[in-house]
Amino acid sequence: MGVTVGAGVWPPYHRGMLASLCRVAAATAIAGTPSPWAPAPDAALDVYETALRSTIDPSSLRTFHDALGREPHIAGTDGDWRVIEWLEDSFRTMGLAVERHEFWAYLARPVDARVELVTPIRHSFRLREETLDADPDTAHPELEIGFNAYSGNGDVTAEVVYVNRGRREDFITLRELGVDLRGKIALARYGGNYRGYKAKYAEEAGAAGLIIYTDPADSGYGRGLPYPEGGWANGTSIQRGSIKTIAYSGDPLTPFRPATRDAERLDPAAVALPNIPVQPVGWSVAEAIMRRMTGRALPPALVKEWQGGLPFAYRVEGGADLRVRVMVEQERRLVHTANVIATLEGARNPDELVIIGCHHDAWGFGAGDPLAGLIAVTEAARVMADAARNGLRPARSVAFAAWGAEEHGIVGSVEWCEANADRLTRNAVAYINLDAAAMGPRFGASAAPSLKSVITEVSRRVPAADGRGTVFEQLTRDQATPGYGALGGGSDHIGFYCHLGIPACGLSGRGGQGTAYHSNYDTVAWYRRVVGSDYEPARMITAMAVGVAANLASGPIVPLDPARYVTDGRAQVDALRERAATLGIEIDLGAVTAGIDRFEEALTAATAVRGRLGVGAPSAAADRVSGLLREIDRAWIDEGGLAGRPWFRNLFAASDPYSGYAAWLLPALRQAVERRDAAAIRVQADRYVAVFDRLTALTDRLTVALNAM
Amino acid sequence: MGVTVGAGVWPPYHRGMLASLCRVAAATAIAGTPSPWAPAPDAALDVYETALRSTIDPSSLRTFHDALGREPHIAGTDGDWRVIEWLEDSFRTMGLAVERHEFWAYLARPVDARVELVTPIRHSFRLREETLDADPDTAHPELEIGFNAYSGNGDVTAEVVYVNRGRREDFITLRELGVDLRGKIALARYGGNYRGYKAKYAEEAGAAGLIIYTDPADSGYGRGLPYPEGGWANGTSIQRGSIKTIAYSGDPLTPFRPATRDAERLDPAAVALPNIPVQPVGWSVAEAIMRRMTGRALPPALVKEWQGGLPFAYRVEGGADLRVRVMVEQERRLVHTANVIATLEGARNPDELVIIGCHHDAWGFGAGDPLAGLIAVTEAARVMADAARNGLRPARSVAFAAWGAEEHGIVGSVEWCEANADRLTRNAVAYINLDAAAMGPRFGASAAPSLKSVITEVSRRVPAADGRGTVFEQLTRDQATPGYGALGGGSDHIGFYCHLGIPACGLSGRGGQGTAYHSNYDTVAWYRRVVGSDYEPARMITAMAVGVAANLASGPIVPLDPARYVTDGRAQVDALRERAATLGIEIDLGAVTAGIDRFEEALTAATAVRGRLGVGAPSAAADRVSGLLREIDRAWIDEGGLAGRPWFRNLFAASDPYSGYAAWLLPALRQAVERRDAAAIRVQADRYVAVFDRLTALTDRLTVALNAM
Repeated sequence: MGVTVGAGVWPPYHRGMLASLCRVAAATAIAGTPSPWAPAPDAALDVYETALRSTIDPSSLRTFHDALGREPHIAGTDGDWRVIEWLEDSFRTMGLAVERHEFWAYLARPVDARVELVTPIRHSFRLREETLDADPDTAHPELEIGFNAYSGNGDVTAEVVYVNRGRREDFITLRELGVDLRGKIALARYGGNYRGYKAKYAEEAGAAGLIIYTDPADSGYGRGLPYPEGGWANGTSIQRGSIKTIAYSGDPLTPFRPATRDAERLDPAAVALPNIPVQPVGWSVAEAIMRRMTGRALPPALVKEWQGGLPFAYRVEGGADLRVRVMVEQERRLVHTANVIATLEGARNPDELVIIGCHHDAWGFGAGDPLAGLIAVTEAARVMADAARNGLRPARSVAFAAWGAEEHGIVGSVEWCEANADRLTRNAVAYINLDAAAMGPRFGASAAPSLKSVITEVSRRVPAADGRGTVFEQLTRDQATPGYGALGGGSDHIGFYCHLGIPACGLSGRGGQGTAYHSNYDTVAWYRRVVGSDYEPARMITAMAVGVAANLASGPIVPLDPARYVTDGRAQVDALRERAATLGIEIDLGAVTAGIDRFEEALTAATAVRGRLGVGAPSAAADRVSGLLREIDRAWIDEGGLAGRPWFRNLFAASDPYSGYAAWLLPALRQAVERRDAAAIRVQADRYVAVFDRLTALTDRLTVALNAM
Repeated sequence: MGVTVGAGVWPPYHRGMLASLCRVAAATAIAGTPSPWAPAPDAALDVYETALRSTIDPSSLRTFHDALGREPHIAGTDGDWRVIEWLEDSFRTMGLAVERHEFWAYLARPVDARVELVTPIRHSFRLREETLDADPDTAHPELEIGFNAYSGNGDVTAEVVYVNRGRREDFITLRELGVDLRGKIALARYGGNYRGYKAKYAEEAGAAGLIIYTDPADSGYGRGLPYPEGGWANGTSIQRGSIKTIAYSGDPLTPFRPATRDAERLDPAAVALPNIPVQPVGWSVAEAIMRRMTGRALPPALVKEWQGGLPFAYRVEGGADLRVRVMVEQERRLVHTANVIATLEGARNPDELVIIGCHHDAWGFGAGDPLAGLIAVTEAARVMADAARNGLRPARSVAFAAWGAEEHGIVGSVEWCEANADRLTRNAVAYINLDAAAMGPRFGASAAPSLKSVITEVSRRVPAADGRGTVFEQLTRDQATPGYGALGGGSDHIGFYCHLGIPACGLSGRGGQGTAYHSNYDTVAWYRRVVGSDYEPARMITAMAVGVAANLASGPIVPLDPARYVTDGRAQVDALRERAATLGIEIDLGAVTAGIDRFEEALTAATAVRGRLGVGAPSAAADRVSGLLREIDRAWIDEGGLAGRPWFRNLFAASDPYSGYAAWLLPALRQAVERRDAAAIRVQADRYVAVFDRLTALTDRLTVALNAM
């Protein structure tokens, strides 16, 4: 028998930790005195955290990596099903309750593709990575050619136009230069946005096809030694990836609904998927094409941003003598795959749920993406299940999730969120995302404001993977302005956070010397050569994840920090004003600021009471407080969603609709500002006033509930 | 008969122009209200300036370019003597008094050189630019192989070490990495410092030889299309240049003295010239060598600063399998050459002298360096002589100088300064340097503080070469923080400014798309392809130069601005404090600041009187005022000079002794700060207190003299 964490006798709250809240920008989040809403020092929790941390085993992480990274496992393939089964078996062996959540999603698979020089010489390029003696995995028969999922089918031969990174601004620049893309093949280099937008903008500009390549200045000799001597892209490394850009995540045919076998589905023809052929290549292919361009050179003003690392002066236009063929054949069809969710039942509040997750599907072996995160999820499950068997069990439940078909456009996690929307809205405490997390020794996090305090407090106790003190020390040492990133698009947090308003964070270890991102070189051998074979980054990520989960799942009062919505809210209002000034428009956000003032006033009262309570004791009153704290993030949900993107319902954060990966904060207002639409700015500002009024009302109820403890 | 400018009836000074001086940083120099010390609006001067500007003729500049850029003219060669004779004839034809100032300097010439791969394969590289059908000049038989003047003689075969730019900090980094350079051949890329320091630091680190190459990221395909399609370096372009780094400029054997035929000379063996063989190459040679390096890769932290534009990951060490040979044979001997100085005698104060100059020697055809400046000097002479013939003659004399052997280490101009030190100290108003000035449409200037106001005022009336308004408008439009650069090393201002304390400036037009700097491609054909054939940049530079010269040579009160030594002095004291803080040392510059305060107080009184006087009238009293204003810059001269560099006597500015090109301001203090030498800082601070006390005393006398007008 042991202590059930979250239901023991808690030490009194330390008065010195009651800090006055000051208006600091979001970016100064890490340092400073702990928030009264952060987890208070607590002997029982300390025992629990210490037990979890000390059980994490690099050799276990290594074993998981060998098992999960044994073969390619693209979503829905036999290899992926074997991963699913291995995960189910492993979680069951740990004593966890395992749910297989099956779904049928509209995915794309490659059938054939060609990229060829047609004139001045005829040459057909290989569209697969070269196999390497140093890494036998690279010869695996199930490895696919390079492809961009959801490319249109087509076979075009045309002149080429170099479009730099294919960002919105790059196509604007080309239009200003008078470059006509109609009927041409656009040639874009990776980076700067989500690749789907390269395809979307190329198609909108009238291009007949698109080739996307990895420039050696971005990954290749310009960054360091290429694989296999070093970790960077060699000339044949191909970045695969989805190019879907529809205005919702998940299965393209079942927005807002789970993609069950019998779900009502949209007509695929009615879904805005790409129409032109889009093909990714390595830089040796790009070099052979671009070296033969003879048309207009880069205007001098563009050289700094547009010239890459290939050994010649880049040009905008290929000229008439250079004709290139791009042929893509893909099949889009319903694919049956599954999420795996293993649950450790909470001792006192089993309905309440903290989720740690990472997808399981990959573009090849996926040793880095996703397995550098999935092994940490698996190890987190192992150590938390192990602790529970030894009597250390959190008050709330913790779920360990392995999502399917993330790579095709964040499918499995979104389908699970849509299938469980009501339950999650009511009971979910937070989602911790570990997508490809352990890629190096330098810790970083992107987080909802309410999770920043608990991450900071846990970081004070987790040794950094670089061997130099704690993660907290690493963060405050390495960053001139320590802070957390904002959550954008591009991974499994999006269903929880942007659709349901469940606070989410992504934890990561970065700083490895190289990348095999979405290539056939993303093997365990690559990982061990580049990230290392000591599994210290994975140990650090696992420790951070179980620490944050343990804190969120324990403690009579859940350590979600509402106060960060004051500081981060003000910082984002300031950022919006600056953005408006840059765009040359005037905006009046006085009403929003007044709303934040009222919220802050209410919060000051609540914070004072919270500070006096310390850890508190488990009780119905404490549960009411925790329930209200969970509602703080939900208050950002607006059923109407964002203009043109109703699936995105969180008014605090969304992905940047022009680039896909970056975060937009206060996105409804941001969108109106970007469109320079004064009327829309006024309308959207009113929605934010309403949000802060809901937060104020919730906070007043919170004060009442806290006083009742 | 015409108006003699500077001796006519001058309009009253415009009261509105009396601006209060405020403490602005040097970098905000350009905009704002004119200083009372700047030239006042003046109808007669306006007539003169307008006449000069309107006489400048692009076709004359073009004709000069054809004549001067007809053949290679390395210092002392027959080609260079033909340039000297052409200049003498031309100046005489203009009606100017021509002085040929001959000197005999210790110069180096190439005899032979080899760079070879020895292992893993044997290959001998060509050390001369390829000849181009598009530019027949590139086949001229007098063009030399690439060479670095004053290289040691030697023949070494060894492993290679890449030393990035061969800066002091690069060699410190290598030492920290434990890279042993002893007996190795260092491979450095151009840029980041004066090439002589690459050789000096390589030799100090024990290298047996040095190869310096032009990286395509710095000039080559990384910047734009190479020559002849574009203007950037192709793989065979070689940057020549001197590598002398002794602690004085001019002839190595006659410091402080003119290099006459019979001068007492140092023993060459006692002069610290380079000992190891140093050879410049184009990037095709560097590529062939560096591609074969197999040793230690760049540490990740160095990649950003050390990786260049060649298409492979750079390494620090070549490894034992790669052996390279460098053989250099040069001859050092006394060379007879000459400066040409043509003088337009002043109408009222013929002893007082404004000098406009540029060197005439080149490394090849020199169409850009020096001719893009020398044609402007020649055209300035033509239009000022022409105006004088038409009755518009300045009060003071103006000299037009073409210096010899600048490329070997600023030889001719320094010898002239040393030969005329007393006269120049007494009478020189200012030196305007136009070295390779007209290389593009964007105007820029580096200037002594006292010249900034006159440059600014003239810029308000000169049309910019880009066709968009005046130079003043261009400067204030293009620069976020408009300002002038500080004068560093590397050209003919150094004898005037750093040795004699004569205020100097360098004027330039930049923004051309390419560079043929010190290569055999620096031909008139290259210039017209890259800079243009309309000679608008040269027209702009000539107009700025004659405008500044006309203002300095006219006006009863010479428009040297003493007030800029308050603002610039304070800014530089602040900069020193910041630098000290960066280095982690404490410095007390309170006494210097108090000295500046006293100077400012004295100056406020003088400025008030100066403002009331307006243009003033020619008189003995005005001459006394001008004489005192000339002495302001001389007050910075300290006979003791800088520690270890006694030839550098100007305590306001010197070249950076660690890099050669950059400027150090308040250099005696800066040197003590860099050495973290607290005792030296105190001693040097006292010298600056003495300078400001001299300035204060001078200014008090100035007030008296102004009141006597």
